[in-house]
Amino acid sequence: MAKDFTKRSQDYSKWYNELVVKADLAETSDVRGAMIIKPYGFAVWEKMQAELDKKFKQTGHQNAYFPLFIPKSYLSKEADHVDGFAKECAVVTHYRLKNSEDGKGVVVDPKAKLEEELVVRPTSETIIWNSFKKWIRSYRDLPVKINQWANVVRWEMRTRLFLRTSEFLWQEGHTAHATKQEAVEEAELMLNVYADFVENFMAVPVLKGIKTESERFAGALETYCIEALMQDGKALQAGTSHFLGQNFAKAFDVKYASKEGNEELVWATSWGVSTRLMGALIMTHSDDHGLVLPPKLAPIHVAIVPIYRNEEQLEAISEKANALKSELEAKGLTVKYDDRDTYKPGWKFSEYEFKGVPLRIAIGPKDLEKGTVELARRDTLTKEFVDYNEVSQKVFTLLDEIQQSLYDRALKFREDSTQTVNNWDEFKAAVKKGGFVNAYWDGTAETENKIKELTKATIRLMPLDSKANAEQGECVLTGKKTNLLVTFARAY
Amino acid sequence: MAKDFTKRSQDYSKWYNELVVKADLAETSDVRGAMIIKPYGFAVWEKMQAELDKKFKQTGHQNAYFPLFIPKSYLSKEADHVDGFAKECAVVTHYRLKNSEDGKGVVVDPKAKLEEELVVRPTSETIIWNSFKKWIRSYRDLPVKINQWANVVRWEMRTRLFLRTSEFLWQEGHTAHATKQEAVEEAELMLNVYADFVENFMAVPVLKGIKTESERFAGALETYCIEALMQDGKALQAGTSHFLGQNFAKAFDVKYASKEGNEELVWATSWGVSTRLMGALIMTHSDDHGLVLPPKLAPIHVAIVPIYRNEEQLEAISEKANALKSELEAKGLTVKYDDRDTYKPGWKFSEYEFKGVPLRIAIGPKDLEKGTVELARRDTLTKEFVDYNEVSQKVFTLLDEIQQSLYDRALKFREDSTQTVNNWDEFKAAVKKGGFVNAYWDGTAETENKIKELTKATIRLMPLDSKANAEQGECVLTGKKTNLLVTFARAY
Repeated sequence: MAKDFTKRSQDYSKWYNELVVKADLAETSDVRGAMIIKPYGFAVWEKMQAELDKKFKQTGHQNAYFPLFIPKSYLSKEADHVDGFAKECAVVTHYRLKNSEDGKGVVVDPKAKLEEELVVRPTSETIIWNSFKKWIRSYRDLPVKINQWANVVRWEMRTRLFLRTSEFLWQEGHTAHATKQEAVEEAELMLNVYADFVENFMAVPVLKGIKTESERFAGALETYCIEALMQDGKALQAGTSHFLGQNFAKAFDVKYASKEGNEELVWATSWGVSTRLMGALIMTHSDDHGLVLPPKLAPIHVAIVPIYRNEEQLEAISEKANALKSELEAKGLTVKYDDRDTYKPGWKFSEYEFKGVPLRIAIGPKDLEKGTVELARRDTLTKEFVDYNEVSQKVFTLLDEIQQSLYDRALKFREDSTQTVNNWDEFKAAVKKGGFVNAYWDGTAETENKIKELTKATIRLMPLDSKANAEQGECVLTGKKTNLLVTFARAY
Repeated sequence: MAKDFTKRSQDYSKWYNELVVKADLAETSDVRGAMIIKPYGFAVWEKMQAELDKKFKQTGHQNAYFPLFIPKSYLSKEADHVDGFAKECAVVTHYRLKNSEDGKGVVVDPKAKLEEELVVRPTSETIIWNSFKKWIRSYRDLPVKINQWANVVRWEMRTRLFLRTSEFLWQEGHTAHATKQEAVEEAELMLNVYADFVENFMAVPVLKGIKTESERFAGALETYCIEALMQDGKALQAGTSHFLGQNFAKAFDVKYASKEGNEELVWATSWGVSTRLMGALIMTHSDDHGLVLPPKLAPIHVAIVPIYRNEEQLEAISEKANALKSELEAKGLTVKYDDRDTYKPGWKFSEYEFKGVPLRIAIGPKDLEKGTVELARRDTLTKEFVDYNEVSQKVFTLLDEIQQSLYDRALKFREDSTQTVNNWDEFKAAVKKGGFVNAYWDGTAETENKIKELTKATIRLMPLDSKANAEQGECVLTGKKTNLLVTFARAY
């Protein structure tokens, strides 16, 4: 399987595309830019969903569901929002097809034209705030803390599996609060929930910070973000949480009667992560042998492969294997005992290696004699013989070790790939080398754009406490004095 | 809350609509026929999803995700399918909006017209079988057993919350098999999975059977179904499972190499249930006081309401209430202790009653003295005082009792509402009275249509073993001899 597989050093982008397809995670469809998430890939996404959903509920959010279609006029209600999203939407104009006159197919029925076109949601602020207007009357109705798991569509020109697709799956949180402070706290809380999840489950270290004005979400006053570094030195935005101020409350006229009887505008946040996280997961850990998965998100923790020459051997091995499988599954692991006779052991070894199953156990006739099994680790590709009676304990120890070791390796890579520079030549060299580049910036959109134009590097984030930075430095492009020490990178 | 609430006997349809909205389950949106599923309604749907998803996985299915948009030409590939679905689809014709010339809004950009229109999926057979063609090469790739949780759109003219909406949520299973027998067994297995779930979790008794040819799914050779009876005597189709034969394999050219090296067409099934189940759940159990939920699907099992005059009393009650809550939650129940000071106890009582919380516990100062609590059952609206030390045990006993009693009551209602008739006059009277009507039918579509035209009753199902019926009778309309004893009803 890994034979026809491009190496990272040859062509990182090609390596990624091949990996996603060959590991059965996803594939392209005939619909421009829309992907098919295959069962193995979806199983990883489901594990992500389950954990995130638990965290959302623990922090007091409830799931709901809002319509897929948004009336065109809604999008215009919040001025910045329409500029940010309206340009790249799938538009429904008709509601019926009819048989074509040649009888060979179907055509759009011109009689079934909608009075107002419907846009397939690119995000749901507008339709949700239209509902919040009905839901919120008094301080007793606040806060409203909603989350929605949904598909959204943004018509992207250049698409890549998981990283940028015209349709993608995501969750979008939308909350309404009585005070500014509460809304800001919510936006920050959810940033921390995301960071926690990405670091502890995906084993991907992230930087937390805020976006510059030009990189903010359309309609937000502040966009909080987490940024991860991929193995090719490019950054990937893994999640965002927005403090929306009162923009949507104004646009949709959402007010509440306070305890004191005054009428006040409501404060808002929204926050989301998407199937893009799959791209971050794949690109952070995988290698030239295929996918590498952190145990906490692996659909299969352990694959057991029997090696045998005859039925009698298979029977004896199966007895051992099934006992081990039961023992591990009783403790919450997912174990696949692959006794298919349609594939050879070597083929199965490659398969589980390529699909990133954290541990593989092989049992052959010699193991039966000696009371051992062969235990192989996916992350390090090392093997060892383990006493059958100790293998269950060993499996748990190794899974913890792998989870931690993947995180440590990624963190070390990021630290080794982070440079702090003081002048334009250093900056250019650092960006060319790749990784995160810390540099002073004069705070103007003009300089930000100029740097992007010259180097393709964007400001990934400003530190959460950047405004409080007492140190001063010189802007890496203009030389102006500034206390804004920010993080640049080329990015996905 | 129940004050302005229509009684079932006054107007069943109005009662239903009011119930859905007042119990915070769902509401209409500005998008024609699309609903908003509110948090409380969505929490019930999530419980349904979780249980069904578990059952699907236990029976060997894997989740995946396919595109929302289907190229128009796909729909034409299977002839019956396009006739069944193409007429009522949302059609995407453009992929961009632009600012209008008057600067006041956005308009469709005529330059961004799609070459081929995209249809928002009404069901996914075509796009999934287009993928199966790539996935299936050899007998070793079979069976493929996929499920998808998704939103689908069918442009309905008359819509009702949950029962018939232009966008709805559902799961759709799609499987491919090497043999006819395996596919038939799969379709029947999934029918049983549905029946099991609906009876044991929703507490809704169902009849299992097959559809007549004219009621079959577009593209199916056999449609298996479960039918439930609502309190107004109308039937509701709660789930369907289709044996699709080789129709989609032929349309998308999906063949496999058998063990013997022959090239064979693949056999197919599909099966689905939707948010329509919410309608069945609501209409089966609820009453003139609001929603009634079976404990296995209730988002809140027990609501505890404190009754107090001062802080001191509240503190003493809260201590008891929180201890009880912890004890019940440790055993897997969801308990809400509602100590909000913004609402009075009477208001809270109405609220939990209307929302169908199975058990309500009230604790007041007298209860503290006597060591009791007041325990109220939603289904029977009865109350009793229970010793505080026995309440936890009592709660579990009652929840089981309620679950069983709701099922028994619904089953008795269905049995009392099922009539078997032998001639046309009896038939007309029975249909007018409502409920299931068993009668002989001569097996022709002509008679079926005539009966529908004359009485609005349709054949809900034929028994699974109808073809083996040795008894003969006379068709209720034509008097022709037939062994087809089928079940009619007016239906949702």
